[in-house]
Amino acid sequence: MTRPIWDKGGAAADEAMQRFCAADDVALDRELFAYDVRASMAHVGGLARIGVLTEGEAASLVEGLARIGEDFAAGRFVLDARFEDGHSAIEHLLAEQLGEVGRKVHTGRSRNDQVLVAARLWLKERLGALVTLCLSVAGACLTRARGTAGVPMPGYTHLQRAVPSSLGAFFAGHAEAFLDDAETARAAWSRVDQSPLGTAAGYGVNLPLDRSGVAAELGFGRVQISPIYAQNSRGKLELLGLGALHQASLDVRRMAWDLSLFATAEFGFVRLPDAYTTGSSIMPNKRNPDVVELLRTLPAVVEGAMAELSAILSLPSGYHRDLQATKGPVLRAFGRALDGLALVPALVAHVAFDEARMRGAIDPTMYATDRAVELAVGGTPFRDAYRQAAAEMTGTAGLAGRTPEQSLGARVSPGGMGALGLDQLAARLAALQVEAGGAPSG
Amino acid sequence: MTRPIWDKGGAAADEAMQRFCAADDVALDRELFAYDVRASMAHVGGLARIGVLTEGEAASLVEGLARIGEDFAAGRFVLDARFEDGHSAIEHLLAEQLGEVGRKVHTGRSRNDQVLVAARLWLKERLGALVTLCLSVAGACLTRARGTAGVPMPGYTHLQRAVPSSLGAFFAGHAEAFLDDAETARAAWSRVDQSPLGTAAGYGVNLPLDRSGVAAELGFGRVQISPIYAQNSRGKLELLGLGALHQASLDVRRMAWDLSLFATAEFGFVRLPDAYTTGSSIMPNKRNPDVVELLRTLPAVVEGAMAELSAILSLPSGYHRDLQATKGPVLRAFGRALDGLALVPALVAHVAFDEARMRGAIDPTMYATDRAVELAVGGTPFRDAYRQAAAEMTGTAGLAGRTPEQSLGARVSPGGMGALGLDQLAARLAALQVEAGGAPSG
Amino acid sequence: MTRPIWDKGGAAADEAMQRFCAADDVALDRELFAYDVRASMAHVGGLARIGVLTEGEAASLVEGLARIGEDFAAGRFVLDARFEDGHSAIEHLLAEQLGEVGRKVHTGRSRNDQVLVAARLWLKERLGALVTLCLSVAGACLTRARGTAGVPMPGYTHLQRAVPSSLGAFFAGHAEAFLDDAETARAAWSRVDQSPLGTAAGYGVNLPLDRSGVAAELGFGRVQISPIYAQNSRGKLELLGLGALHQASLDVRRMAWDLSLFATAEFGFVRLPDAYTTGSSIMPNKRNPDVVELLRTLPAVVEGAMAELSAILSLPSGYHRDLQATKGPVLRAFGRALDGLALVPALVAHVAFDEARMRGAIDPTMYATDRAVELAVGGTPFRDAYRQAAAEMTGTAGLAGRTPEQSLGARVSPGGMGALGLDQLAARLAALQVEAGGAPSG
Amino acid sequence: MTRPIWDKGGAAADEAMQRFCAADDVALDRELFAYDVRASMAHVGGLARIGVLTEGEAASLVEGLARIGEDFAAGRFVLDARFEDGHSAIEHLLAEQLGEVGRKVHTGRSRNDQVLVAARLWLKERLGALVTLCLSVAGACLTRARGTAGVPMPGYTHLQRAVPSSLGAFFAGHAEAFLDDAETARAAWSRVDQSPLGTAAGYGVNLPLDRSGVAAELGFGRVQISPIYAQNSRGKLELLGLGALHQASLDVRRMAWDLSLFATAEFGFVRLPDAYTTGSSIMPNKRNPDVVELLRTLPAVVEGAMAELSAILSLPSGYHRDLQATKGPVLRAFGRALDGLALVPALVAHVAFDEARMRGAIDPTMYATDRAVELAVGGTPFRDAYRQAAAEMTGTAGLAGRTPEQSLGARVSPGGMGALGLDQLAARLAALQVEAGGAPSG
Repeated sequence: MTRPIWDKGGAAADEAMQRFCAADDVALDRELFAYDVRASMAHVGGLARIGVLTEGEAASLVEGLARIGEDFAAGRFVLDARFEDGHSAIEHLLAEQLGEVGRKVHTGRSRNDQVLVAARLWLKERLGALVTLCLSVAGACLTRARGTAGVPMPGYTHLQRAVPSSLGAFFAGHAEAFLDDAETARAAWSRVDQSPLGTAAGYGVNLPLDRSGVAAELGFGRVQISPIYAQNSRGKLELLGLGALHQASLDVRRMAWDLSLFATAEFGFVRLPDAYTTGSSIMPNKRNPDVVELLRTLPAVVEGAMAELSAILSLPSGYHRDLQATKGPVLRAFGRALDGLALVPALVAHVAFDEARMRGAIDPTMYATDRAVELAVGGTPFRDAYRQAAAEMTGTAGLAGRTPEQSLGARVSPGGMGALGLDQLAARLAALQVEAGGAPSG
Repeated sequence: MTRPIWDKGGAAADEAMQRFCAADDVALDRELFAYDVRASMAHVGGLARIGVLTEGEAASLVEGLARIGEDFAAGRFVLDARFEDGHSAIEHLLAEQLGEVGRKVHTGRSRNDQVLVAARLWLKERLGALVTLCLSVAGACLTRARGTAGVPMPGYTHLQRAVPSSLGAFFAGHAEAFLDDAETARAAWSRVDQSPLGTAAGYGVNLPLDRSGVAAELGFGRVQISPIYAQNSRGKLELLGLGALHQASLDVRRMAWDLSLFATAEFGFVRLPDAYTTGSSIMPNKRNPDVVELLRTLPAVVEGAMAELSAILSLPSGYHRDLQATKGPVLRAFGRALDGLALVPALVAHVAFDEARMRGAIDPTMYATDRAVELAVGGTPFRDAYRQAAAEMTGTAGLAGRTPEQSLGARVSPGGMGALGLDQLAARLAALQVEAGGAPSG
Repeated sequence: MTRPIWDKGGAAADEAMQRFCAADDVALDRELFAYDVRASMAHVGGLARIGVLTEGEAASLVEGLARIGEDFAAGRFVLDARFEDGHSAIEHLLAEQLGEVGRKVHTGRSRNDQVLVAARLWLKERLGALVTLCLSVAGACLTRARGTAGVPMPGYTHLQRAVPSSLGAFFAGHAEAFLDDAETARAAWSRVDQSPLGTAAGYGVNLPLDRSGVAAELGFGRVQISPIYAQNSRGKLELLGLGALHQASLDVRRMAWDLSLFATAEFGFVRLPDAYTTGSSIMPNKRNPDVVELLRTLPAVVEGAMAELSAILSLPSGYHRDLQATKGPVLRAFGRALDGLALVPALVAHVAFDEARMRGAIDPTMYATDRAVELAVGGTPFRDAYRQAAAEMTGTAGLAGRTPEQSLGARVSPGGMGALGLDQLAARLAALQVEAGGAPSG
Repeated sequence: MTRPIWDKGGAAADEAMQRFCAADDVALDRELFAYDVRASMAHVGGLARIGVLTEGEAASLVEGLARIGEDFAAGRFVLDARFEDGHSAIEHLLAEQLGEVGRKVHTGRSRNDQVLVAARLWLKERLGALVTLCLSVAGACLTRARGTAGVPMPGYTHLQRAVPSSLGAFFAGHAEAFLDDAETARAAWSRVDQSPLGTAAGYGVNLPLDRSGVAAELGFGRVQISPIYAQNSRGKLELLGLGALHQASLDVRRMAWDLSLFATAEFGFVRLPDAYTTGSSIMPNKRNPDVVELLRTLPAVVEGAMAELSAILSLPSGYHRDLQATKGPVLRAFGRALDGLALVPALVAHVAFDEARMRGAIDPTMYATDRAVELAVGGTPFRDAYRQAAAEMTGTAGLAGRTPEQSLGARVSPGGMGALGLDQLAARLAALQVEAGGAPSG
């Protein structure tokens, strides 16, 4: 390994201890490296504007950083265990390339604000992607909803058949969920949109850094003012981002549960395309809905990450090495959950429903609620109407003659099965898409 | 117990089973009861507007509901185990008071949307209170920060003395944290601000309910359109609210940790007023900072509630009785955390700091960073300046003659110890207070 | 409120602060009170044995404690907010009853070891109850398994029909799960079976306390030696106990999920007795399996408690007031989960299965695995046999003629559907019952 | 990628879907591969004993498996994305090497019991290592305790100075904690010590497999009887193991917190060897106790894994692909926590304490408890003695003349500072070491 940048001479650290401390930090930093390079370029520009670097020095450093970024992107430079971390690597590479000038890049910053800004740029981009994916799922659901608004299926409560519903209502329900999720992700994005760069190790630095200019160059909406809060927000803002990811993953799980249940032979409502199933090593007769089951685990990885972060953060103010351990769970959870979420729009578009089977599962007792309400409209107190409808249900009377279409059509309250409100949902989707236009740019 | 409203005759439920099912539901419903009454009044108004109730019936019901609300508030009516839950109680009481008319209140709704709307009104109000309390803590911190901007104290990283900081910077850091928390709570409030009333058991109802009018009367910003999503959002929106509560509670813990540490004899920076301490049953010499330690536990109750909710929500679409179990943890976590948060402004205002002790804890090596940056500004590459400053530190040279005031004053980057940016923080506080003006009305 | 026992004169504590600190401690202490009284009697006996109390003083105190215990049990004495906590109450009541002698009870102990010992006696008893209940569920399952070993039902993987199984195998599987859980609970009981009494506030006391004698009198298997560890184990041993409770609650959830699924109209395997279902407020046609759904939430309350405790315990050594907050979640989780678990034996005994429906759900392709193995036994490499069986499945060939009974009978590996091993499971149950004979005495 | 072993011809699975399903499974399987090979050898032996394989076929397969195991260990064979998972890889490699015979290895088993048995062997070995490491930490603590029983240091409650303690008592407290942890890990090991091999996909197989013989060959104490429970225990037994790991990691955190606190300049009790500290990138004056801080995060990774697993397990009986997602968190948590735990014995052995500094931190008021107890022994009721001692504390009287040695020496209750009970702890350590002799063999 290269010498640590904090090396002042003296005894070397114990090796097993160093391995434990390094953990998989370098591997994790690979994901942050490009952001670190980008933030380093902005930092250099800021140093030049306040005269700490000459224009020439700044140009050299920016060029060197650009080269490092390109080498990394192209795989010519691999970030590995030669370096203590990605932050040190940048300084080492610059010093190697540029000599004395390279050793100037770290003026006015600490690895503390360096990792903060890289992680925040990364998180902003992921939250932007989350917004986009949620809108994409919502859009796919709305498209299906428009085509299936009149397709009856049973509505369940307690997993028991309750009242007639429709496939369109099913998709509309999932669509609205992901619209909320997009909005939540966007709100988290706004909170994360503040630049910590220029706060050094949590107590500022004796230079008149152009923090606002650097923040603007990096696309941040504002500066995180307090250096102490910049440190204290590490892990906290990541938790906020994970909270948004959790909301979306909960809705993925809900949908996956529905599909898993509907794909049983007993329900038989759903047929997953062969391309979405796998086989068994011992049972020749099996086609298993693996992808749906794995989508059902998305909240688990997010909840695991949230628990891990929460457990780390019980600390007094200021940086502690404990905070390094926040990186892994955040990268892992966003990586896995966004990968899963990205599969959902196509799944929604291609999952096939057996309309006859669904219609066949609507039995006449499911009209009892309609009947009770009709009686109530006719003047019978609802509680009496309820008992009368229950009695009719078991008799030979009226419920048997009803159709799902009548039942659905009569539910005309806004959002009801006869008035799904798809235009309103589409309008909200469109508005969020416009707003999100600015989000994913990071 | 009164007969269940769903009673249709037939065998009674097993008693032990019923006790387990009821759990502490009635006790929990006491907290929701007033909201349920309020939503019931709006529902009745809506039924009258679409002609399902006559004006006279509606007036009777509204009057009856108002009386129930007043009796409950005054303690004349106690919600207890005679009733299956608070929702059934309202119907029973109305039927008792008004006879046939009372049995009409439930037309067009289910307990499913009844509990949803009551819980949502409750949650909106709690999130409004969270916004207000966060702003109140931020305000208290800013007031202290203004008075202590020039008071030196050591700044720590890894709990090791790092560079000089100031008491003002300490308070400013906590202030900015709570400004973010207020914004997060406000965003959660916005998401929760949608009315589920009129979605019945998750599949709408065969009536042209005036959902928008009812929502507006209850102060909701919009209608939650999909009845299926209304059910599916149960627990999910509560989790979003808990996420906001968690952010604030993390910052309370951070501050409590600081005070706990600073109150040790060894640090000796903080003296808690006697009114904030308690004694030991065996050790006559003790004064213990109990309140600070209990504030440190706030995230625990929130995390417990989040884990509990998350574990419940792994379900297919539609209502399941499992969801009843989401009530307890949400009420508990908001109750405890808001109680704790409410103590913080006074604690911030009254906690005393020992300035001499803090100044005495700043040793000369803590100026080494200043020195290194100065050398860097003078042209020495930072990495070389770092080593030179390290060398000077142990020598007899320059660091000893420096003062905390010089060090603080030189840190002029925005937010730095010489430029705390209190006016900017105050401006953000003021803007959030204006926005929050509308929030707590619920 | 009575004066705190640590009162030394001086300013009173702030009232809102005191309310927050007290929280629901007194209510929680009601559950611990009898254990506290019992431990106090043993403590007094120990003090007499080392001559710190005269025989007469000890007799008075023991008599006084007995009276307090009886008054509490009979409801003549109610532990309420007059007292700081249950521990202080005992001292107050004794002083009130006995004057000077009453003020001697606290010699040689602190509230720290007083609460530790009461909580530990309580936890031992709960873990003993957990052992007993797990064995009771296992026994009920084994009884059902014996009666249903020959009743075919489909076996599922991925919720897809896989191979024929039997109802007996279903019950045997759940039986073995709860045998493991009983063993786990018993192991936790053993770890908790150590007496902290006599460790004072974590640093011992300048008396030759008869810790072993007192421990033996309280039924503890050994003394917890280190006073520092006694404090540090607070919350940790509770977490261990919760871990055991979690294992059992996971298995309750698994069974509840099975019943919930099997009770759908689509599966139709299970009919819950009316006494185990409830109705809907709006849908006259519904009978809902509420108890099964609420049993499914048991792990949630345990996981919530575990998360809450874990979040509290990030602390240096020694007592901190934070630890008070461990009480609530532990009492809550054990209370709820044991209540639920207690319903399971009767549920297992009474749940009815529709044998015709289950048999009807076994389709011929489910014999493909049998066929592949038969081919393999005949010498075809298994991977080739697998493909051949898959091909036959869709043809007109042999699979259709098979019966579930043949398929079950052929699976003769130990534990297989033709060799359930019920006698082995029963033998293990019997052995655990013998061992548990000593457990619940606490 | 090689063709899936379940391939029966037909459309290929969607590629993005397959990548998501595979996740990092192959990488995880690298850790399980050797166990899978070992279990496969035992399985082959069992098949030969019941005549399903000839002796010659079995010999070929065992030899082939041995070669695969050696190639893997030597790095000649790398398990990578060519294979669906490690289980399929073994079958592919055998078929490649041995042709027809190789395609016979999977007779009578499913990947379901194949992964179960490999994971269980792995988990047993890790729990064995956990036992050993806990005993090693306990041993290191006892060694230090023996050498420091007479070294005074302050004892804290609420982080406030309470009564005199000793360094020996500090180490004895940590020693006893890890003895408990070893016992807990050993109990988990016992529960995990049951063989699932021979249960196929959860419903057994139509062969008279020699499950007991195979289990014995693999070192299992018994057979897991029910095939359904074998599947249902997936994740559950891993959670049990994580619970044991959590207990030990809680005690590591406790110790790390102590060292972190004691290493502050303000406490100044501890000096970490340079080899255990690192520097800052910007502050030349810093030496940071990184390893101690990272040890403090061990419970976080375990809690994260527990939360992740718990969230996955809300499922009906039988295998679901969701369960694949249990692998990652379990491997990760054991990997990280055992790595950390392995550093503790040396840390305990080498951490240096500043005896003068600790003695200096004991102020005379800390003798007040001793004084109160002395008065109580003299006949003053303890509550009165408490107030008298409190009064003397602030006067000029007796407390000032006392020494830490007197105070420590007088605390002679078992475990107290004058009677640490190190021999008893050492005896328990020795007994556990004997018992553990059998554990790590897995």
